[in-house]
Amino acid sequence: MKIVIIGGVAGGASAAARARRLCERAEIVLVERGPEVSFANCGLPYYIGGEIQSRDKLIVTTPERLRTRFKLDVRTLSSVEAIDRKHKKVRIKELESGRTYDESYEKLILAPGAAPMRPDIPGIDLPNIFTLRNLQDVDRIKRQANSGIKHAVVLGGGFIGLEMVENFVKLGLQTTLIERNGQVLGPLDQEMTQPIMQTLLAHGVKVELKQNLSSIEPIDNGLLLRFESGLTIQAEMLIVGIGVKPETKLAVDSGLKIGTRGGIWVDDSMQTSDPDIYAVGDAVEVKDYVFGYDVIVPLAGPANRQGRIAAENAFGGTSHYRGTQGTAVVGVLGKTAAMTGASEKLLKRNKMPYRKVYIHPAHHAGYYPGSESMTLKMMFDPQSGLILGAQGVGGAGVDKRIDVLAVAIQAGMSVYDLEEMELCYAPQYGSAKDPINMLGFVASGLMRGEHPQFDVEVMLAQDAATSPYVIDVRTAEEFSLGHLPGAVNLPVDELRSRLSELPRNRTIAAYCQVGQRGYLATRILRQSGFETSNVGGGFKTYQMHHP
Amino acid sequence: MKIVIIGGVAGGASAAARARRLCERAEIVLVERGPEVSFANCGLPYYIGGEIQSRDKLIVTTPERLRTRFKLDVRTLSSVEAIDRKHKKVRIKELESGRTYDESYEKLILAPGAAPMRPDIPGIDLPNIFTLRNLQDVDRIKRQANSGIKHAVVLGGGFIGLEMVENFVKLGLQTTLIERNGQVLGPLDQEMTQPIMQTLLAHGVKVELKQNLSSIEPIDNGLLLRFESGLTIQAEMLIVGIGVKPETKLAVDSGLKIGTRGGIWVDDSMQTSDPDIYAVGDAVEVKDYVFGYDVIVPLAGPANRQGRIAAENAFGGTSHYRGTQGTAVVGVLGKTAAMTGASEKLLKRNKMPYRKVYIHPAHHAGYYPGSESMTLKMMFDPQSGLILGAQGVGGAGVDKRIDVLAVAIQAGMSVYDLEEMELCYAPQYGSAKDPINMLGFVASGLMRGEHPQFDVEVMLAQDAATSPYVIDVRTAEEFSLGHLPGAVNLPVDELRSRLSELPRNRTIAAYCQVGQRGYLATRILRQSGFETSNVGGGFKTYQMHHP
Repeated sequence: MKIVIIGGVAGGASAAARARRLCERAEIVLVERGPEVSFANCGLPYYIGGEIQSRDKLIVTTPERLRTRFKLDVRTLSSVEAIDRKHKKVRIKELESGRTYDESYEKLILAPGAAPMRPDIPGIDLPNIFTLRNLQDVDRIKRQANSGIKHAVVLGGGFIGLEMVENFVKLGLQTTLIERNGQVLGPLDQEMTQPIMQTLLAHGVKVELKQNLSSIEPIDNGLLLRFESGLTIQAEMLIVGIGVKPETKLAVDSGLKIGTRGGIWVDDSMQTSDPDIYAVGDAVEVKDYVFGYDVIVPLAGPANRQGRIAAENAFGGTSHYRGTQGTAVVGVLGKTAAMTGASEKLLKRNKMPYRKVYIHPAHHAGYYPGSESMTLKMMFDPQSGLILGAQGVGGAGVDKRIDVLAVAIQAGMSVYDLEEMELCYAPQYGSAKDPINMLGFVASGLMRGEHPQFDVEVMLAQDAATSPYVIDVRTAEEFSLGHLPGAVNLPVDELRSRLSELPRNRTIAAYCQVGQRGYLATRILRQSGFETSNVGGGFKTYQMHHP
Repeated sequence: MKIVIIGGVAGGASAAARARRLCERAEIVLVERGPEVSFANCGLPYYIGGEIQSRDKLIVTTPERLRTRFKLDVRTLSSVEAIDRKHKKVRIKELESGRTYDESYEKLILAPGAAPMRPDIPGIDLPNIFTLRNLQDVDRIKRQANSGIKHAVVLGGGFIGLEMVENFVKLGLQTTLIERNGQVLGPLDQEMTQPIMQTLLAHGVKVELKQNLSSIEPIDNGLLLRFESGLTIQAEMLIVGIGVKPETKLAVDSGLKIGTRGGIWVDDSMQTSDPDIYAVGDAVEVKDYVFGYDVIVPLAGPANRQGRIAAENAFGGTSHYRGTQGTAVVGVLGKTAAMTGASEKLLKRNKMPYRKVYIHPAHHAGYYPGSESMTLKMMFDPQSGLILGAQGVGGAGVDKRIDVLAVAIQAGMSVYDLEEMELCYAPQYGSAKDPINMLGFVASGLMRGEHPQFDVEVMLAQDAATSPYVIDVRTAEEFSLGHLPGAVNLPVDELRSRLSELPRNRTIAAYCQVGQRGYLATRILRQSGFETSNVGGGFKTYQMHHP
């Protein structure tokens, strides 16, 4: 068997190592355009910021190591120019010498990755405008960032954009973040990104939302960015992190099927439209695990997994890729934001029925020092209770809870299963009722009709005729520091003795700070004959919707 | 409805709050022997050590708060002396006044907890010998620990014993830990406790295993502990933490069914043999989720859950308790040990077929600073791959992985599902191939026959005639620092060119440091016609078995 693999980073390197383990006698050629294979692309921003101090740390493995240990025929600084599917060979160009030659294959695995996008605007090719993909980019960015400049601009508030912002802040650079949309971290729901926004602002980052860059001009000490709104910003360097575009040129040129989203089409065995060619990683379209439609999800975990599967199937295996859940996490200046499965906005866009709950728990028992708070949001099917998606933002422990929910989604678990989860508990690690159990209690109470809940933004959008009578069941002091529009203060501990103050002819909405007292108030009122719902997630959730 | 609840800490307080939420009109009487309800029992050791500075923090809620918010009839310093099941009433004694009176119930919920055991030996009632159950115990222990003494002894190396040791070390006390068995943390498998042992020793704790205390004598400056082995130890205080005994007196006296393990018998609705009496928490027997037999598991999470279920069913609900998985975690001087599901020793004792794997991954990407290492062990069914149990020990991230595996066990997932898990990955949080994925790869490779593995202790126990030819595929330098008995060094990178040095008529065992190079060596050798297995978990696992 002779396998040629195009691309030697996450998916390609995984495929190559797996192929060798499966077959000692196979001829395995790994062709990589860059000088390195298998570098730590997710670590690049942290080397720029100095968190990772040694550049060598970014080299996960060397071509030499792959040759010795895995007996791979590694060809770096080599670009595949064309695929001749008929004769099953690829044309390889040695980038240093310019020499081209043909290499035959029995099976071909494409792992070309995705290229950073650049807006097509005047001035985009000026100096000191960078994208971030490989170590050469990193060297250039690091040089400029450490050249004595004071001000950096990041275009694009996605995962990589925010990681770059964090690292520029750590370098002491005044940093401006520009985002075209109304929120950072596009895959998350907007309100869940508010704590990240606040963190950015608290660290002195200037954030400009809903700004479209229209042109860039050279000025004396750098660049002048002009926006459609009329805004102008001066910058000494600009990082463009507005997303990536799958590298499909080879696939297109050789007539392989391209999917509806513009990525290389593959089936669930990672096979392209040509049975002798597999494709993996950022360049391919895969199924969304929740929605079932095709998506392009440039994540390292799925790329590695797909690389393994492609290698197994190239040797006649029957491995299948189950689709991508989109589990993702980002750290931003001490805060964590993470998600898995469907977002609320995609559920809406796909007109899928759902309900949602919010909780604002502490990472671990409040009585043990150092407990950090978080917000968890979960979407689920209103009929079955099946968990559809979850998001978390806050301090320590967000990634742990999203991991648990990622497994729950994979397992097809419902909100009722969360009530029963038995997770690690000691006061440094969690709570006897873990945030996950609490999510289960709140969502199951909603499902069972025992704990009816208003979504705060839906409730506030109602017109005067149908809107509920809103009571704030927190203390007078809490109420005085801010409350929902039109709310009346009636502390939960006084509720039982003041029922006569409440209208019997209107629906009542009760709320507190995070939802717990509002839940008790709801129970008290419903059993006293009032049509009442709790405002899910309380005032804290309202504040995330109305920062 | 009138409900009487006996015991106001975890299970009892949960039941009371749940009962009120379910029914605003019910009369709910909560009877608690101590002066407090719902205190943070898992936090007690950390208040002694000073990590939790304020005693008030340990009071989760007050009787007054429960009265106001939940309209509970809370009676502290009140002991239930007897249950009259025929007339459905309990006899309550006010501990301060000595007055007794009867209180009727429609439903009764028992949450009496468990009492610390004390060995029945001479001198056990001398001063400065303590057990740890409530705030009064804590006050006494804290007073003695801070009285200028230098040396404390902890009897019992279980979860609470180790937490006490940690806190005595933090107080600067010279600390000795005595354990009757051959290992600390009895529920874990012995080899998995080795990193904890090393941590204890590194912090100057004296650990005496396999020591049976036979008597205690008063001496001038404290206590003289005499052991069956002849060992004597002087101590200025002694904490007895050798386990707890369910408080079943009330249940026994009133003729309720007692289970095979000595706890109060309940069905999966938490109902005792009397349909009007429920029981929850440390005093009851529940089903082990993996083995299906009855167990007594004194853990806060299950107690809370059972309290909710009992309250729901007391009001005619149909909630079921799914059994206890035994998920537990403990922090010891910067290290974490955690487990869920079946241990290897219990699988052996129950003669259940299983296979196991070990991995020694880093918490997060090695190239990002601060990555801490851990060991994970997983047991699974050799036919189906169903996950039966898991244990972890190490630094950051152990609790996260055990939580994920706890959910996998609850969901009935197999090792193959672990390969496909899509967990949070950014370099600060994990790896593109998370430790959980790695567990899946190693176990699935074993299941599929592609990655045969020896258990190191089984391999070493074989006699000379059948024992394999052992090769150490690490570097010469690693080999020189220690290796398996009888092993021959043959670095993996030289293996392909030195096959002729290996015997063709013997099974070969290949191993490396953690298992990865050994796996590759196994693949190379098997495909070259050698009957070869990898030594699972490598030299590091061997060292845990042979400290």
